[in-house]
Amino acid sequence: MTEAVYFDNNGTTALDSRVLEAMLPYMTAQPGNATSRHVFGRTARQAIERAREQVADATGAHPSQVIFTGSGTESDNMAIYGITAKNGHQKIAISAIEHPAVTRAAQALKCAGVKTETIAVDANSFVEQSALEELLAKNKLADAIGLISVMLANNETGVIQDIAKLAEIAKSQKAFIHTDAVQALGKMKVDFADLNVHAMSVSSHKINGPQGAGALILDKRVDIQPLLYGGGQEKGLRSGSENLAAIVGFGAACELVSRELIQRVGNVRQLRDKLEVGLKQLGAVIFGNQAERLANTSFFAFPNIEGETLVMALDRKGFAVASGSACSSDSTEPSHVLMAMGIDEDLARGSVRVSLANNNTSQQIEDFLLVLENELSRLRRLTAIAV
Amino acid sequence: MTEAVYFDNNGTTALDSRVLEAMLPYMTAQPGNATSRHVFGRTARQAIERAREQVADATGAHPSQVIFTGSGTESDNMAIYGITAKNGHQKIAISAIEHPAVTRAAQALKCAGVKTETIAVDANSFVEQSALEELLAKNKLADAIGLISVMLANNETGVIQDIAKLAEIAKSQKAFIHTDAVQALGKMKVDFADLNVHAMSVSSHKINGPQGAGALILDKRVDIQPLLYGGGQEKGLRSGSENLAAIVGFGAACELVSRELIQRVGNVRQLRDKLEVGLKQLGAVIFGNQAERLANTSFFAFPNIEGETLVMALDRKGFAVASGSACSSDSTEPSHVLMAMGIDEDLARGSVRVSLANNNTSQQIEDFLLVLENELSRLRRLTAIAV
Ligand SMILES: Cc1ncc(COP(=O)(O)O)c(C=O)c1O
Ligand SMILES: Cc1ncc(COP(=O)(O)O)c(C=O)c1O
Repeated sequence: MTEAVYFDNNGTTALDSRVLEAMLPYMTAQPGNATSRHVFGRTARQAIERAREQVADATGAHPSQVIFTGSGTESDNMAIYGITAKNGHQKIAISAIEHPAVTRAAQALKCAGVKTETIAVDANSFVEQSALEELLAKNKLADAIGLISVMLANNETGVIQDIAKLAEIAKSQKAFIHTDAVQALGKMKVDFADLNVHAMSVSSHKINGPQGAGALILDKRVDIQPLLYGGGQEKGLRSGSENLAAIVGFGAACELVSRELIQRVGNVRQLRDKLEVGLKQLGAVIFGNQAERLANTSFFAFPNIEGETLVMALDRKGFAVASGSACSSDSTEPSHVLMAMGIDEDLARGSVRVSLANNNTSQQIEDFLLVLENELSRLRRLTAIAV
Repeated sequence: MTEAVYFDNNGTTALDSRVLEAMLPYMTAQPGNATSRHVFGRTARQAIERAREQVADATGAHPSQVIFTGSGTESDNMAIYGITAKNGHQKIAISAIEHPAVTRAAQALKCAGVKTETIAVDANSFVEQSALEELLAKNKLADAIGLISVMLANNETGVIQDIAKLAEIAKSQKAFIHTDAVQALGKMKVDFADLNVHAMSVSSHKINGPQGAGALILDKRVDIQPLLYGGGQEKGLRSGSENLAAIVGFGAACELVSRELIQRVGNVRQLRDKLEVGLKQLGAVIFGNQAERLANTSFFAFPNIEGETLVMALDRKGFAVASGSACSSDSTEPSHVLMAMGIDEDLARGSVRVSLANNNTSQQIEDFLLVLENELSRLRRLTAIAV
């Protein structure tokens, strides 16, 4: 629809044409309601169970652990509300850099008397083991923490957490642990069994699948309260007619991830590294780059250049990038992730995120760097005049 | 995918090819996250706002009253939970024939101390004005009823309620009223303003739109608690990246409803009437046919013939029909709708639903009646032998 270059793949991704191809038969032929017992219903059921296997394969889970939802947001809410409500937890802990789908789901529990503690991160947005240990120790005598939620990879910095280690600590204290792997899937190896968590959120539209599908991967020993009641789909845990075509597409996108992950990561890493060489030459501060990061993400700022202004200038020149978190960019507050990292507020207001995908090219990076250089000088001239 | 005849359109419908055409540009080009400020984001935003107008037009609502959700089930849950929780209601009333998305959402509130009263229906599954009035009178002295939910058209019998009348009664008692119009939309005139309710649920996949989209139409004076928290989409009432293609498709399907409703209803009514003439000749009891019904729905039973058995026999002969409610057909309980109507349990176990759409033909009805006649004699012979 537009010829601009898309560098906002942590926001949403393009549907892979092979995924669309897998979906189309379910959009052109008569679909069935998967709970129906006639041939259309059985065909739908089979397609959903095949997709469940594909999602399980790509996430290191067993198909019976996959609960289909409508989005990553729903998976996060289901984990935070569902585990807390069902198990009568009075206190939970989430990291300081969670997505609003986790942060605000936790806040909403306040009405029900559930307190939320925050797990601090370091200057790279990494959760140190000791941060969780100290928090758990502090809360040991009073009411203990029932649920811990730390995301696998951050949507802004791309920084990757050592979830398996945190899970070990959580489990040693008999707490449940959930991880939001929405940004991780498709950009790094994600293995539910290895991560050793009780619950994990993933989303289809972040991995070149369709919007409208997500999953909560759930250890079956964890009891959970549903968010949506009705026809009893997904073993009663998530009611509502299954979104057949989207689930089929999510499955197909997962299968492609299973097959192509290493090659995709290699490609985007090369592009991202090339980008960051250029960014540094132009004077950028790159956030989180002392920690292990997703290969596709670069989050940076130029001192004295406002992020919003830069994003709009780049948009006019045909490059779509994000400022702060794309999922809550209604607000003009500086990124809560950068604040948690202790970044200076002025610098944080300059933050811009480039998030790449496999269909981006080296030429696009070169073009972008040229345009960026021009826009930076223009903006700097304007600032100089204004002063 | 199969050559069978599909008579289960209250379960789910085929995607209209014109709707698919409207969706495809959003599935083939790079989509944006509608909260993003670049050109891709703005394009997505415009498409969503256009769809909002189309949904509003088809439902007699103002665009600002349309909250997009992921399904009819989600809309129902949002209304029941959201209104009750936000307004601190201690008692709600729902009709005896609601869809599980309403019934079970109401049941789930029990944990929070919210009681549910049941509004009785008559032998045709119609809610008499007096039934609501009596219930409200009975509950006037003790804690009053805060929210009333009665569906506009029933998914099994197709019977249509006089919601405007019930709304008047509800409002005279200062109660909120919600109506589930999931089955009504596309099959009869649905006008939010005329119905005079506070909230109304609709769903895309029941009107030849894609799965994965629904809406709650909400009077803006009603405060509501969200089910899903996160990025603050839909004015903070329903977070989660918008399902762009599905919303566009829902809008397109609504526009077609606005244009073609009268013609569609005329077509299916003719087919349904032809069907019922045949059914009666074969000895069927037709449920709810003394009340006003949706033009596409026929819910019937043959004495001494088990519904499940008949559905499976018809399936083998190439006709997809439903037994009881298609949305919760995991259970083998007789339909709660028929039980509420006071239908004999044995007869209720024989219930079969045919729900037609505009793409069904007169020839299909004739073929169906022939096959049905044969299957009935075969099953009656088998029963005779067994006795
Ligand atoms: C880390 C993270 N979690 C959750 C979400 C929400 O996922 P969805 O857009 O599928 O609702 C997003 C993206 O928006 C995200 O980046
Ligand atoms: C009356 C009624 N309400 C709600 C629903 C649920 O809608 P959805 O399938 O979109 O979740 C259905 C159908 O399944 C229905 O028939």
